[in-house]
Amino acid sequence: MRRHLLMAITLAAALGLASFAAAADPLPSWNEGQAKRAIVDFVKRVTESGSADFVPVPERTAVFDNDGTLWAEKPMYVQLAFALDRVKALAPQHPEWKDKQPFKAALDGDLKTVAAGGEHALLELVMATHAGMTTEAFAKVAMDWLATAKHPRFNRPYTDLVYQPMLELLAYLRTNGFKTYIVSGGGIEFMRPWTEKVYGIPPEQVVGSSIKTRFELKNGKPVLVRLPEINFIDDKAGKPVGIHMHIGRRPIAAFGNSDGDLQMIQWTTTGAGARFGLIVHHTDSVREWAYDRQSHVGRLDKALDEAKAKGWTLVDMKKDWKAIYPFQQQ
Amino acid sequence: MRRHLLMAITLAAALGLASFAAAADPLPSWNEGQAKRAIVDFVKRVTESGSADFVPVPERTAVFDNDGTLWAEKPMYVQLAFALDRVKALAPQHPEWKDKQPFKAALDGDLKTVAAGGEHALLELVMATHAGMTTEAFAKVAMDWLATAKHPRFNRPYTDLVYQPMLELLAYLRTNGFKTYIVSGGGIEFMRPWTEKVYGIPPEQVVGSSIKTRFELKNGKPVLVRLPEINFIDDKAGKPVGIHMHIGRRPIAAFGNSDGDLQMIQWTTTGAGARFGLIVHHTDSVREWAYDRQSHVGRLDKALDEAKAKGWTLVDMKKDWKAIYPFQQQ
Repeated sequence: MRRHLLMAITLAAALGLASFAAAADPLPSWNEGQAKRAIVDFVKRVTESGSADFVPVPERTAVFDNDGTLWAEKPMYVQLAFALDRVKALAPQHPEWKDKQPFKAALDGDLKTVAAGGEHALLELVMATHAGMTTEAFAKVAMDWLATAKHPRFNRPYTDLVYQPMLELLAYLRTNGFKTYIVSGGGIEFMRPWTEKVYGIPPEQVVGSSIKTRFELKNGKPVLVRLPEINFIDDKAGKPVGIHMHIGRRPIAAFGNSDGDLQMIQWTTTGAGARFGLIVHHTDSVREWAYDRQSHVGRLDKALDEAKAKGWTLVDMKKDWKAIYPFQQQ
Repeated sequence: MRRHLLMAITLAAALGLASFAAAADPLPSWNEGQAKRAIVDFVKRVTESGSADFVPVPERTAVFDNDGTLWAEKPMYVQLAFALDRVKALAPQHPEWKDKQPFKAALDGDLKTVAAGGEHALLELVMATHAGMTTEAFAKVAMDWLATAKHPRFNRPYTDLVYQPMLELLAYLRTNGFKTYIVSGGGIEFMRPWTEKVYGIPPEQVVGSSIKTRFELKNGKPVLVRLPEINFIDDKAGKPVGIHMHIGRRPIAAFGNSDGDLQMIQWTTTGAGARFGLIVHHTDSVREWAYDRQSHVGRLDKALDEAKAKGWTLVDMKKDWKAIYPFQQQ
């Protein structure tokens, strides 16, 4: 048996079929295994005409979490790094921050004190740095930051820290008639300026958390002003709500990595017909990070149990992915 | 000159070219005139390669109001007719409504008293009839009603009361690479179940007013429950906010019919590059209704002045449209 396989491989290589086979593989950064097989099987089931599970193109909706699912979320959420840098940039206009928490801690780089302030401290930082300007001005601030900021471990732009296998998966789904959406706890306006270029996902297919905006005529010119008031938190039980509000269809495939994605995957996988749920499990302490049940950022606990109980596909990053980031490809 | 024209027409007719010309016209229900010319000119300017005003396909976003712009809003908003019928249907479970306004008036068909209650009374009716069930159950209730309810004047389903020239305009824009969106003060979940079939606009391209929903596990089954609490009012200054929230791009063309659309058209037409604003003016008291500055429903006052001041295209329904509804076509 083994000899036959070897012979076949040798023959294929001789005929130049190996490179052909590699080129034809839509998921070249995925090792052969259960996860890759489950993805390809699902796509075939819902797209092949005559299949009992065939889904028409307009219904092929796939939703992806962002932080930890499409790009790195360690050592901290990228948007938190942005907020901390904004506090520093805006500090000269806010002398009072020197003695006021959580701003003092942010300026001192004292992340422990920031974290100790909990959600309330984080919201204060976000409100102080993300509101009070027009939507256009904010998009520019976010893009300017992303163009220059570097990830502390890899010393590269944060947008280099996207997962190569997930980029391939996004493209593979789109090639098969899927509309791909981001459904993230991150800020919708922090993501929209760059998701099309980085992921091929246009702004109208990005769902996220938001603050309120107000329409104003500023010297006769219409603008939308960002207000220091929460509009929507697109996390946990908020994700199915955000999906319903923005998309108005129940997805048939959902991809996440943490307990924040649990309800989104429940909502997706319990609809009628063929459904697909997938969890990216961070298991690679060398090429990336290894974390799950005990992690503060990207905790994967309940959703890990439910993935096993419900048969969602579990991706073992260390085992299933040939490369993590595009720049690590061979 | 006139003789040459007549000869040309006779010749064309003799050769069967008239029907060919008619078939090639993407807007056959529009009379030749300033409005039709302005639409076609704009589309050419933004789509012809080499044009100074060329707009890439992903940026071709067009937004349409619904009530009074895509379908009839007289004698009352279709959704109000739906709410009133729902009050009647639900009355047996609410004996207290017999003595409680605005429900008593709704049950008596006393629209004057309902209207006298203002926005608050309308909200009470909407909350009592649109909340308290799952999103799936509500979509079914709305579709069941639309399948049987008849418009009081035309004795036809409400979805027959769509404007034939606007259906042609939607298709014409889509043929030219536009994404067409509804941006309506009406309920987003009241519209989404049928807009794809009636207008060719899928649910993810519908923006509207909404109540809040909550994710719940009901006997282990995930559902979204509709709550009696306003989430967003997509009208007037809310329309640019809704556009920004859902689409995340500034449209290049906006179509409305009332003061509720003023800010949406301001927001659209003041962006950089070629922009298009259009107001449907209800001028046909015979085939439809004639109303503007004095009307309670669909008041067109400030936006009529601004259309003239800013050079937005004004559609005179009586003069510009060969047919109003599909069933009136010859």
